[in-house]
Amino acid sequence: MPNVSQKGLTMPESPIRKLVPFAEAAKKKGAKVIHLNIGQPDIKTPQVALDAVRNNNLDVLAYSRTEGSEEYREKLTAYYAENDIHVSASDIIVTTGGSEALSFVMGSIADTDDEIIIPEPFYANYNGFAMANGVKVVPVVSDIDTNFALPPIEDFEKLIGPKTKAILICNPGNPTGYLYSKEEIQKLAQIVKQHDLFLVADEVYREFTYDGKEHYSVLQEKGLEEHAIIVDSVSKRYSMCGARIGCLVTKNKKVVATAMKFAQARLSPPTYAQIASEAALETPKSYFTGVKEEYVGRRNLLISELEQIEGVKVAKPQGAFYCIAELPIKDADDFAQWLLEDFRVNNETVMVAPAAGFYATPGLGKNQIRIAYVLDKESLKRAVGILKEALKSYIG
Amino acid sequence: MPNVSQKGLTMPESPIRKLVPFAEAAKKKGAKVIHLNIGQPDIKTPQVALDAVRNNNLDVLAYSRTEGSEEYREKLTAYYAENDIHVSASDIIVTTGGSEALSFVMGSIADTDDEIIIPEPFYANYNGFAMANGVKVVPVVSDIDTNFALPPIEDFEKLIGPKTKAILICNPGNPTGYLYSKEEIQKLAQIVKQHDLFLVADEVYREFTYDGKEHYSVLQEKGLEEHAIIVDSVSKRYSMCGARIGCLVTKNKKVVATAMKFAQARLSPPTYAQIASEAALETPKSYFTGVKEEYVGRRNLLISELEQIEGVKVAKPQGAFYCIAELPIKDADDFAQWLLEDFRVNNETVMVAPAAGFYATPGLGKNQIRIAYVLDKESLKRAVGILKEALKSYIG
Repeated sequence: MPNVSQKGLTMPESPIRKLVPFAEAAKKKGAKVIHLNIGQPDIKTPQVALDAVRNNNLDVLAYSRTEGSEEYREKLTAYYAENDIHVSASDIIVTTGGSEALSFVMGSIADTDDEIIIPEPFYANYNGFAMANGVKVVPVVSDIDTNFALPPIEDFEKLIGPKTKAILICNPGNPTGYLYSKEEIQKLAQIVKQHDLFLVADEVYREFTYDGKEHYSVLQEKGLEEHAIIVDSVSKRYSMCGARIGCLVTKNKKVVATAMKFAQARLSPPTYAQIASEAALETPKSYFTGVKEEYVGRRNLLISELEQIEGVKVAKPQGAFYCIAELPIKDADDFAQWLLEDFRVNNETVMVAPAAGFYATPGLGKNQIRIAYVLDKESLKRAVGILKEALKSYIG
Repeated sequence: MPNVSQKGLTMPESPIRKLVPFAEAAKKKGAKVIHLNIGQPDIKTPQVALDAVRNNNLDVLAYSRTEGSEEYREKLTAYYAENDIHVSASDIIVTTGGSEALSFVMGSIADTDDEIIIPEPFYANYNGFAMANGVKVVPVVSDIDTNFALPPIEDFEKLIGPKTKAILICNPGNPTGYLYSKEEIQKLAQIVKQHDLFLVADEVYREFTYDGKEHYSVLQEKGLEEHAIIVDSVSKRYSMCGARIGCLVTKNKKVVATAMKFAQARLSPPTYAQIASEAALETPKSYFTGVKEEYVGRRNLLISELEQIEGVKVAKPQGAFYCIAELPIKDADDFAQWLLEDFRVNNETVMVAPAAGFYATPGLGKNQIRIAYVLDKESLKRAVGILKEALKSYIG
């Protein structure tokens, strides 16, 4: 029998993958599981996007252009300009989700065994794309006590070597909810310029910033044009995760030309989803106002409820819709599994994402969990209540 | 300024990429260009698929399952059973086009510098996926004089070494149109079993077989269950290239489990396109009868017209909708560019794909072109007429 690849054997699985069978078993036994573990928003997709697909009049569902339709990319430039990001259509390659954008970027800037520095905890799938591309992730630790702010720049300095090709950030961050300040982006700009690195920013949560804070993009920073690459997506912005449309944006022409080769091999991004994404750009501002209010309300509720649990430490997120909570336990993997197997309040339990899977350094994050606040407030409140009871019972 | 990757620099471009600016320039000058170079069928997408998307009632365009929706995969098993391919839903991972299926397969079965043997000429993007995955393509030459039949099995034997992981075929073939016989598949089955290799078959043109010939799938071959992997797609079957839905199918559980890790990293295939693809399975048989009749008519016309041109040799395709023609010239790249730049009949010219890009062995196929017969007969006839005049003028 032929063997699968070593790469495949060592590819990491999703941090919650091991828990899925336990969640399914719990449901089979009739228990209700509140999912704090997933990033699929419950928010309605903008009507204008849904309608555009329902009213499409295609007769032949043909390939689109490899780099995405001209119309969509032109309209995207207007969207970016509104966000003080000034690019032209030729600086944009439309991709199948932010996932594919990231994969193209890794292939375009790094060879086998090259290194990309990423503040941890980070979006776990960065590991998967790195592994698939033969690239090594070098983590730099950020800390719950600073809300996962940018680590000291000296910590980056220490890790930069001849194999280092880029620093990758997620801003605002999944799983941390941390929003980098303009000053932090400028510190990163300085170090990537000094060492001739790329600065790749996953900005898929750009709109989700709270408390009056503004997002500062790597492409707003003057002088960073050749270094900055944005990875973007419509998934969270318009609650269109199933579209699978993202893009990469950079003023670096060589990166665009190189990424285009990877894009050509897979022919084109999905056509229906591009119709939806182009229409979604017409989403009225009031949609975002409403969505942001909803998330801020959820976050405030979540944080204040979590803070009332003895022994729980929580980083206050100012963006995205995740937070990391440190629990008075030793092993969040075990706790998460126990919640699904053994703990119920009125036949209900919660599923959380153990945070260790968001760290590359072994042993870190073992007492932390990631919570996604993509549920209505009532469910969130009930979920934290269950967590509180569960911790008492688990520790006791 | 930071540098792009070596991998990116050496990534091959599409065989027609260099010609695109010349085609655009010709059109700008008012000339009409008949495209013999592309695989985008003009055939209408089945109404049932178009309607399913128009009538969808999604409110939240959510992620689907990583492996594709349960309903779609269940229905796919019935489709395969009709084609005498007996698999269960858990043997199928739905992918973003056949492209992604192929990429997952390469990542799952081969590590950096491992080798995959492919009869050439082959679909040029195999090169791109191999390069992106760090895998080496080892070509085995097939010949226009045998219609590009399977090369002698000794030719494969000579190329198998410790790094060889798989043999990859496209059946029926793009760009050759060759349909492998049951006996040829059985020869391949024997050699992959003997050497513990995978046999990967790109069967996206399964339905397009002519002259009463039947397609024989690698998964119809008994005893090949652990070795056989099908790469499939709805793109050509239902003229739905823009959907970007494909799948990989294998009875090898380790391959499924490994490919699932790559699939998890990119979250899910596109939702709208899965709706279209699931509905497309209801396409009436009469659709395919009509489509096949149309393609057979086009092929017959194309081949007979090409055979009337002095010095042109053409392989008779019995599947897919491509053929390779050998021209009485030295450099098809130059000829193709000259057609676009300098040659017109009634202000019309043709664009062809130089075949060298479908070979991995340098120097091969330089006097060959690939023609896709995805145009109506009238255009096809006019296009071959233009080619005939062009050859006279170019040679003379």
